[in-house]
Amino acid sequence: MAKVLLTGFEPFGNTPINPAESVMRMLDGTRIANGDIHGLLIPNNFFESIEVVTDAIEKTEPQLVVMLGEYSGRAIITAERIAQNYNDSTRYNLKDNRGVEMQGEPTIQNGPVAYHSTLPIRAMVMAMRNIGVPADISDTAGTFCCNHMMYGALHYIATNQLNIPAGWIHLPQLPQIAALPENIGNPSMSKETAALGIQAAIEAALANPRDTDDPIPSHLQI
Amino acid sequence: MAKVLLTGFEPFGNTPINPAESVMRMLDGTRIANGDIHGLLIPNNFFESIEVVTDAIEKTEPQLVVMLGEYSGRAIITAERIAQNYNDSTRYNLKDNRGVEMQGEPTIQNGPVAYHSTLPIRAMVMAMRNIGVPADISDTAGTFCCNHMMYGALHYIATNQLNIPAGWIHLPQLPQIAALPENIGNPSMSKETAALGIQAAIEAALANPRDTDDPIPSHLQI
Amino acid sequence: MAKVLLTGFEPFGNTPINPAESVMRMLDGTRIANGDIHGLLIPNNFFESIEVVTDAIEKTEPQLVVMLGEYSGRAIITAERIAQNYNDSTRYNLKDNRGVEMQGEPTIQNGPVAYHSTLPIRAMVMAMRNIGVPADISDTAGTFCCNHMMYGALHYIATNQLNIPAGWIHLPQLPQIAALPENIGNPSMSKETAALGIQAAIEAALANPRDTDDPIPSHLQI
Amino acid sequence: MAKVLLTGFEPFGNTPINPAESVMRMLDGTRIANGDIHGLLIPNNFFESIEVVTDAIEKTEPQLVVMLGEYSGRAIITAERIAQNYNDSTRYNLKDNRGVEMQGEPTIQNGPVAYHSTLPIRAMVMAMRNIGVPADISDTAGTFCCNHMMYGALHYIATNQLNIPAGWIHLPQLPQIAALPENIGNPSMSKETAALGIQAAIEAALANPRDTDDPIPSHLQI
Repeated sequence: MAKVLLTGFEPFGNTPINPAESVMRMLDGTRIANGDIHGLLIPNNFFESIEVVTDAIEKTEPQLVVMLGEYSGRAIITAERIAQNYNDSTRYNLKDNRGVEMQGEPTIQNGPVAYHSTLPIRAMVMAMRNIGVPADISDTAGTFCCNHMMYGALHYIATNQLNIPAGWIHLPQLPQIAALPENIGNPSMSKETAALGIQAAIEAALANPRDTDDPIPSHLQI
Repeated sequence: MAKVLLTGFEPFGNTPINPAESVMRMLDGTRIANGDIHGLLIPNNFFESIEVVTDAIEKTEPQLVVMLGEYSGRAIITAERIAQNYNDSTRYNLKDNRGVEMQGEPTIQNGPVAYHSTLPIRAMVMAMRNIGVPADISDTAGTFCCNHMMYGALHYIATNQLNIPAGWIHLPQLPQIAALPENIGNPSMSKETAALGIQAAIEAALANPRDTDDPIPSHLQI
Repeated sequence: MAKVLLTGFEPFGNTPINPAESVMRMLDGTRIANGDIHGLLIPNNFFESIEVVTDAIEKTEPQLVVMLGEYSGRAIITAERIAQNYNDSTRYNLKDNRGVEMQGEPTIQNGPVAYHSTLPIRAMVMAMRNIGVPADISDTAGTFCCNHMMYGALHYIATNQLNIPAGWIHLPQLPQIAALPENIGNPSMSKETAALGIQAAIEAALANPRDTDDPIPSHLQI
Repeated sequence: MAKVLLTGFEPFGNTPINPAESVMRMLDGTRIANGDIHGLLIPNNFFESIEVVTDAIEKTEPQLVVMLGEYSGRAIITAERIAQNYNDSTRYNLKDNRGVEMQGEPTIQNGPVAYHSTLPIRAMVMAMRNIGVPADISDTAGTFCCNHMMYGALHYIATNQLNIPAGWIHLPQLPQIAALPENIGNPSMSKETAALGIQAAIEAALANPRDTDDPIPSHLQI
């Protein structure tokens, strides 16, 4: 059996219900393929979030780490390719749950500029699409707590030379949040659809230690 | 008891599963408040669609008519305010299911330019939002079969001086359709979320023979 | 020679510079094909706007009426197909320049539900595209002052049985307005590009008293 | 006097006219503040693009390097924060101008995951907004030739320990490209507006060797 650490952020800012928490709780304690899902709620705070996840990695010794967050405004699930050593919450007019703003500071002084996800994100995206859940690869996790924690977790795994695939997946807003007056017009995804996608993604990650080479058409323009 | 005629379009074009059909089938035969839901599948064809719905109005003698269609690219449920006497399928590069294109022809020769929905759409939109389903009013039902059938049904009701509130609600693509390679990036809504919204909308329509005056903030710009 | 009445709205709400006014002023007094352009600035007020344009129609006796407004959030020029007898400024959180809100009232009591533009909008859109200015047909002019004035002008022309083609064209925000902090992310179009498009559109309208039947592919989905 | 190397990509794929080339040619040979603009056209090819720009850096010995590209679908000018050591042209269904596709290969074997732009992008974005040109910071330059060349140039500068601020700015499609049938609906920006913005950005870069700490509100959601 494989242990899968599945983290989900708690509510923050204008997100009274975080789909990351909802999906984490739905899958916590379940078995996906040969993986036992260990759910973990993460405080939406700079640095503390990294401590919580790295502590859990140390104690749980998982074979796979999948971290979940919310990305308002995105219509589909996005598997993040990269996390950068840079933070700016002010552009979103947001603070973390302890009221801390960051603007321009790195997460790790003199750390590498960025880490690539070590998840097989191509295989995971194709698995989500194949099960009927819209998904794509993203090349930016933003500059708020999600990117921060993704960078911190990958830095911890790299500097400790752990051989654990880890990475981040962003979920759209929940319908009930997109139905609030200030969000009308935003796309959304139900927690059931999102959980179906994350299940398929985890199954694909467990089955594909190395990523697929299949093309992932995106309808992105450049 | 009130009879509610709830119609849903069949698949068409690039839509192998139509959320309008899915939601209609989920609610067919159920009771919503004091309303019995009579579901009806509609062929996605110019003019035949109007015949099918007006035949059903004549035979069923409903107290309320709610017609459902799909609007790809929209992220939320939209209650249509208006249907116009104009058809153009060519701009969407679409034909109806019998291969018919329309381009510039009216639905009713010398008919009125447009009909307003006679549903209490403000109350219906607020009811959907209140139950956590993102929704808004739309001022265009497009120029394909949905607008065509909405116009035709409202024209039939008006010219026969029937006193039946009737109108159109558009649903986003289903997730499994938005997950097809050609649609990646499109917003979607699960049939469960959409059905929850339509239930609340029908309940509101049964309770509000005259529409509310509450403001419906839209986050639309102009 | 033909007289062309070209109207442009003054600034309103969060639009300190209105591209409609800018383009009207750029083309005022010029000759386009066989047309002399008579520019007219319109106050952004319910009902007063209609009085000003219908007075000008009576006095100028133009052969063509092209009315310009701004539609924030749209990326391309849109020729409106239809104006409806319905007003709602509250959804945009806007008032007119005298502080008047409308919510649900018609422009003309017991007037027709809608009027279609009598401009050759297909030919005008194709002419704009052919000269390199992105444009499309729109099926909603919103529910604020633009739709209001378009409806009022078409109602006046229809009820007075004047044989004057008339209609509405919406312009995107100007770059300097899209560069304001509250608008960052909005698409824009320079007044020079917009004026080039309007010139081509007017030339096409003068040359095509009846509209073309050419298909106008839209990349809209439905 | 300072020498400013300003590069612009040639046409590629579905972009018969590249705004990057147009703006580069408009500013080539001009003086901006104390900077002499040395324009350079770049072939849209993997690796060759890097050779051309690094050769020019070696020969010109500029004090500032600003590289321009086009990003279709974006409505505003975007100053890129980061370039990654990863290439995938297949997701865009694109090849470079010699017909080469990349899918998953790095630009530099065992190179760092990413480089941050060394331009004062916050100051440059604020300068563009202040002159009325909509602009923002972007956290992804895509995975086609722009990101490739940005990474390659920054890698060259870093490994040669040159002290030259360098980075990438993306321009929206030109109006005439957004007016092509396959692009209708895309936002655009005229070359005149774009050139005005790039002038202001270069002036800001020359004046701010260290970046500003001013907040850059984005209206991005997360």
